[in-house]
Amino acid sequence: MRLSRYFLPVLKENPSEAQIVSHRYMLRAGMIKQQAAGIYSWLPLGFKVLKRIEQIVHEEQIRAGHIPLLMPTLQPADLWRESGRYDDYGEEMLRITDRHKRDMLYGPTNEEMITDIFRSHVSSYKDLPLTLYHIQWKFRDEIRPRFGVMRGREFLMKDGYNFDLDYESAIHAYNRHMVSYLRTYERMGLQAIPMRAASGPIGGDNTHEFLVLASTGESEVFYDAAITDLKFGDRVVNYDDRAECEAIVKEWTAPYARTDETHDEAVFGQIPEERRRSSRGIEVGQIFYFGTKYSEPMGATVVTADGSRVPVHMGSHGIGVSRLLGAIIEASHDDKGIIWPEGVTPFHAGIVNLKQGDSSTDLACEALYRDLSARGLEPLYDDRDERAGAKFATMDLIGLPWRITVGPRGISAGKVELTNRRTGESEEMSSGAAVDRLAQIYAGI
Amino acid sequence: MRLSRYFLPVLKENPSEAQIVSHRYMLRAGMIKQQAAGIYSWLPLGFKVLKRIEQIVHEEQIRAGHIPLLMPTLQPADLWRESGRYDDYGEEMLRITDRHKRDMLYGPTNEEMITDIFRSHVSSYKDLPLTLYHIQWKFRDEIRPRFGVMRGREFLMKDGYNFDLDYESAIHAYNRHMVSYLRTYERMGLQAIPMRAASGPIGGDNTHEFLVLASTGESEVFYDAAITDLKFGDRVVNYDDRAECEAIVKEWTAPYARTDETHDEAVFGQIPEERRRSSRGIEVGQIFYFGTKYSEPMGATVVTADGSRVPVHMGSHGIGVSRLLGAIIEASHDDKGIIWPEGVTPFHAGIVNLKQGDSSTDLACEALYRDLSARGLEPLYDDRDERAGAKFATMDLIGLPWRITVGPRGISAGKVELTNRRTGESEEMSSGAAVDRLAQIYAGI
Repeated sequence: MRLSRYFLPVLKENPSEAQIVSHRYMLRAGMIKQQAAGIYSWLPLGFKVLKRIEQIVHEEQIRAGHIPLLMPTLQPADLWRESGRYDDYGEEMLRITDRHKRDMLYGPTNEEMITDIFRSHVSSYKDLPLTLYHIQWKFRDEIRPRFGVMRGREFLMKDGYNFDLDYESAIHAYNRHMVSYLRTYERMGLQAIPMRAASGPIGGDNTHEFLVLASTGESEVFYDAAITDLKFGDRVVNYDDRAECEAIVKEWTAPYARTDETHDEAVFGQIPEERRRSSRGIEVGQIFYFGTKYSEPMGATVVTADGSRVPVHMGSHGIGVSRLLGAIIEASHDDKGIIWPEGVTPFHAGIVNLKQGDSSTDLACEALYRDLSARGLEPLYDDRDERAGAKFATMDLIGLPWRITVGPRGISAGKVELTNRRTGESEEMSSGAAVDRLAQIYAGI
Repeated sequence: MRLSRYFLPVLKENPSEAQIVSHRYMLRAGMIKQQAAGIYSWLPLGFKVLKRIEQIVHEEQIRAGHIPLLMPTLQPADLWRESGRYDDYGEEMLRITDRHKRDMLYGPTNEEMITDIFRSHVSSYKDLPLTLYHIQWKFRDEIRPRFGVMRGREFLMKDGYNFDLDYESAIHAYNRHMVSYLRTYERMGLQAIPMRAASGPIGGDNTHEFLVLASTGESEVFYDAAITDLKFGDRVVNYDDRAECEAIVKEWTAPYARTDETHDEAVFGQIPEERRRSSRGIEVGQIFYFGTKYSEPMGATVVTADGSRVPVHMGSHGIGVSRLLGAIIEASHDDKGIIWPEGVTPFHAGIVNLKQGDSSTDLACEALYRDLSARGLEPLYDDRDERAGAKFATMDLIGLPWRITVGPRGISAGKVELTNRRTGESEEMSSGAAVDRLAQIYAGI
């Protein structure tokens, strides 16, 4: 993309309404625009990151054997009356009446609807196990929306639901989700720690939240420093193998890690003092096993091998897709702007032309643009007639992990400069070497 | 995907509520499930086709130089009060009140919001031309939703908006959209004819609808048969070239083609009788130029080169993404089921194992599955323990364009059977030849 043809409305001033750094930078980098309290437009740069995150979530869910579908945003109230949650949910549920005076709602989650789909179409144990998920916009009418996309009202969430014949199989689904989530977050450049959690309105005893450590997090967290040394890495997982998934879950749940809701000072005190940590965390996902809480009242049953009819064991598993943008920025920024991890960056590299209109630098930039594109990389070329300082400031603010700087002096020596956004380190090399280096870096992502 | 692990709830009976063939087949093929009047869940097979269509729309919009973003589903009523449409829109607009008693609505279209984004961030003619688009769920509270996804209440639409300095530039944007739409529909295997249309609540004089000919269409259409001979083909278009885009538009708008709303019997009568056609059509898109209808009342202006301030010229351009599934099926089916064009098929080929459990056919099917996947193709392997007739019926119903049949007799002779869903023609060949043939077919899509 050439910046002269893009829509990147960067703000020079710090917006006064933004209290935390991710909200500030998302506004300043032209990623979002507020349309109403807690409701945002995703401007082109923000939309690109949102799509990258969504794509990673899809890939890892499909890898785990889970099946994508899409449920609508609006739901009939009657489904929620069946589960008993219509009255329980309180004012955070956005209730709507249509022209025929039917009670509807904007879905805050989908346990009822997915259970309805299941009971309409599945009746035999032979069709189990089954895990269905979707990535869809949801609405929670927060009384005080704040922190930008971190606590918005209209938000994008991945929610998946497993249907299993018995407890053991449902716990395998729970473990499978935890493993797939560890891999998902790590691909986004995040360390998200699974912590034993409280269940809230979803219900169920087995539940873990995934938290990203950040000083602006809404939860107080307590953990054994040993857990921050764990890496998922590039291990290949057979998601059908119960023992293999269970072993990975054990590895990540053995060290103490809890939120203030489940914190136990006595157990925490047994950790060697030098490894005891307390901090704040941002919740970016949660998994639940809740057994037959919905299948029983809603009649989601299957006939077993011996001919009896039993309610299925279920769980639900969420990832806060739109919230992740905020969490990633909270975890990865400096005083100049955002620093995108390579896995989610909106563009793979920026090209800065130090002397727009100079035929040698223009030609070199166009060649770089073409060569990077030919390698499957998407560059953002700042081809505006601006001074170098302004171009650098924009690139630093929007946070592309790599920048190639092209100036007349370098070009006459056959060199460009490749700069790492995170370390600030620069290296001179030929254009071809810079393209090779970037292709190599992204091949490993 | 192996069918034994998929969620494909095929119905044996014809659902009584479905009046048209696309609705019937989408329900029977397990593509959708109705959750409320005009509100559907997209089950896995339906969701896959929806994503393919969405992807083609994205690719062709980006090719035309248009920039994707994403606006929210809910909008504040105040924006619509500015344009005067809040009161005009009538009962089809779903009005919502949030917990703080603020008036909101579920967006039926986005002219107001995109104009708000523009006026907040753009103030110079140097930032023009600009075309922004999104693909987002919308809601129109139809009094009698029917025909499945063809006239639903919650529906997925691509809507794009151009901002230009003057009339000529805006007409180029109009032409660019028409060209990109012709290419978009053709990639989906559809012939969608641009017809001069009436503007309705969007406003503006220049407008064309794109209609797919089908006996179940909601509009009566009149056209010169010459237009059905036009093919976009694989021509490479420079979307910046005004003359080139205009020439393509002229080519497609020269033959008479109008809906009943704009039909002129006198002009129609001048077409040679043997080329006069009347038929029915399904609307799958519409483009508008409406000048300063929104920019003027909402203050979307730019400063020109001579320092004066002028309202921008705008247009809006829609494609009915979810409705397209219905339109494609209406245009492409037989009495056994759907026939997907290669461009939008949910799986590239079906593999039918005639004797599940026989080691030679099982091995051959697994090898085919692996080889097709290695070529970037996605097969659906019917690995259920079912009789051949049931497997064929399912494949015919869900409409994959190609089927590979693997039986013990063929395998002993080193052969499988490749069958074309549309023609019913089968050809015996080696597994390797079948894989090569399919890779070749899809390379051209």
